[in-house]
Amino acid sequence: MRIAVDAMGGDNAPQAIVEGIMLAQKEYPTIEFQLYGKETEIKKYVTNDTNIKIIHTDEKITSDDEPVRAIRRKKTASMVLAAKAVKDGEADAIFSAGNTGALLTAGLFIIGRIKNVERPGLMTTMPVLGNPDGGFDFIDMGANADNKPEHILQYAILASYYAKNVRHINNPTVGLLNNGSEATKGSELTKATYELLAAEKEINFIGNVEARDLLTGAADVIVTDGFTGNAVLKSTEGTALALMGVLKESILSAGLKGKIGALLLKDSLKKMKNELDYSSHGGAVLFGLKAPVIKTHGSTGPEAVKYTIRQIHTMLESHVIEDLVQHFEKESQE
Amino acid sequence: MRIAVDAMGGDNAPQAIVEGIMLAQKEYPTIEFQLYGKETEIKKYVTNDTNIKIIHTDEKITSDDEPVRAIRRKKTASMVLAAKAVKDGEADAIFSAGNTGALLTAGLFIIGRIKNVERPGLMTTMPVLGNPDGGFDFIDMGANADNKPEHILQYAILASYYAKNVRHINNPTVGLLNNGSEATKGSELTKATYELLAAEKEINFIGNVEARDLLTGAADVIVTDGFTGNAVLKSTEGTALALMGVLKESILSAGLKGKIGALLLKDSLKKMKNELDYSSHGGAVLFGLKAPVIKTHGSTGPEAVKYTIRQIHTMLESHVIEDLVQHFEKESQE
Repeated sequence: MRIAVDAMGGDNAPQAIVEGIMLAQKEYPTIEFQLYGKETEIKKYVTNDTNIKIIHTDEKITSDDEPVRAIRRKKTASMVLAAKAVKDGEADAIFSAGNTGALLTAGLFIIGRIKNVERPGLMTTMPVLGNPDGGFDFIDMGANADNKPEHILQYAILASYYAKNVRHINNPTVGLLNNGSEATKGSELTKATYELLAAEKEINFIGNVEARDLLTGAADVIVTDGFTGNAVLKSTEGTALALMGVLKESILSAGLKGKIGALLLKDSLKKMKNELDYSSHGGAVLFGLKAPVIKTHGSTGPEAVKYTIRQIHTMLESHVIEDLVQHFEKESQE
Repeated sequence: MRIAVDAMGGDNAPQAIVEGIMLAQKEYPTIEFQLYGKETEIKKYVTNDTNIKIIHTDEKITSDDEPVRAIRRKKTASMVLAAKAVKDGEADAIFSAGNTGALLTAGLFIIGRIKNVERPGLMTTMPVLGNPDGGFDFIDMGANADNKPEHILQYAILASYYAKNVRHINNPTVGLLNNGSEATKGSELTKATYELLAAEKEINFIGNVEARDLLTGAADVIVTDGFTGNAVLKSTEGTALALMGVLKESILSAGLKGKIGALLLKDSLKKMKNELDYSSHGGAVLFGLKAPVIKTHGSTGPEAVKYTIRQIHTMLESHVIEDLVQHFEKESQE
């Protein structure tokens, strides 16, 4: 198993990335990690070089780079070289905490789509609040701005395989994000999508799910178009952050009483914060490509990098992508 | 000023509604309140009958009724009679805490649209967290499942007038909910909408706003299509509720420590909860109709009813609808 790592992507790169790889190395000593980036910088954080290959390059893609142009022009950027390694069969998966748009572009144009998958989607396993073992796979979180019903049907298939193979959920339930729970509800897009999902025998479609029920674990897989997915994800994050901010400020301004109260409730407050942290499930998968292409937050720390390597390891071990290739191959023959 | 009240709409009707009207009556003794519903039930809660008219009817629309059918068939339902009073010029506005879809239908088909307004939208003043005086007008929250760019432009005009006339904001800023802040971002719908908004001289368009920045007060008015608005609103509510639930449960399970901590942080926790309660701004307006049509949550209490009457009073006093009629009249002559 060989994982190509964009060591220069993210706010704390290469330190956080390489430190995370060192944590992952302890768990998976047989994985070969290919670290793409500035050798002298990377070496500072390599504490054990077993199965570590450093591929030096001075060029990197920044968060301000325009994605398509960056992938075209920065031909020796760490992210581009890592993607090429996957394309050329020298690595089995790519991981980056860098520019999301650029990684999507590199995934689509360098690594390429699974045959018959029209529009790969961005998928994350989100938390179910109040159930630390819970989670649901949410796709498309924003790889596309406009989706057709056929794309969303493919997301349902992709994510069902993921839930089954990677998260070991038997016969995972699939919900369609919609503006009402009744079957007749929706926009033109969701109504047409509903019909496709209901007719597809290989998924366990349970109907519409409203945005307010997402975090309660309404289904194992939730599918939506990329525009809505992006809006829902960001408003969920924004609401949580804003609320925590209000609480924090209110505690700070409450003086000694606030201090003691916060100390006594430390565990409870921490628990609330932890519930929102879904990095233990790994990063976001650009799903529908010929290999795992995984993105984590730019602000990711070593621990989250380790979780993401664990996720990639499970994806490769479970042959989820090979199974999907077969599925979509078969579909074209029918 | 005469307000038609659907006294039978909502989970706690008629008690919560009539008690709320009694609170509002103290503040606005000159408003005539027309209470539609079961007279014997309503009378129980009328403590002062000055300017109170009760129009008896046995029929009412329930939350389970299919909206269009209910409006067509239940011709003497309290909501239908209240809407007819507005249509016939016997009342200046209608208020209900009942079936949202039915109220939208009654508003559209009985009261009717302002000339040249194509698709009235549902609008609420949402809170800006950390700023108790702040708020932004969010439209369309879900009156429509599919919107065209022209509709969203009209929402921007409608809500700008509201922010100016009713919330007394000078030259209110307008943001377009989108999947990125750059001008070039978006779906086909938001890109086309962006161009219309940027070209409209009567609004103060400041560009795209991402869903994660909504509650931070990014703009005085945020416009979006009804499907996305519904999803964002519900995920905001869902996230807040789920988070509060996690915190509450975590405190309860922390035993004595949790109890004392919660006691010390009582004010801070209450503040967090209050920040989310935007009922002080009133209810949701079905905006673009010939008269104020206002909806509050089915679970609304007397206090929220009072705030909503205050909102209707300001709307009527500020002549916001007359100004809008003029605006859209003028537009058709150009």
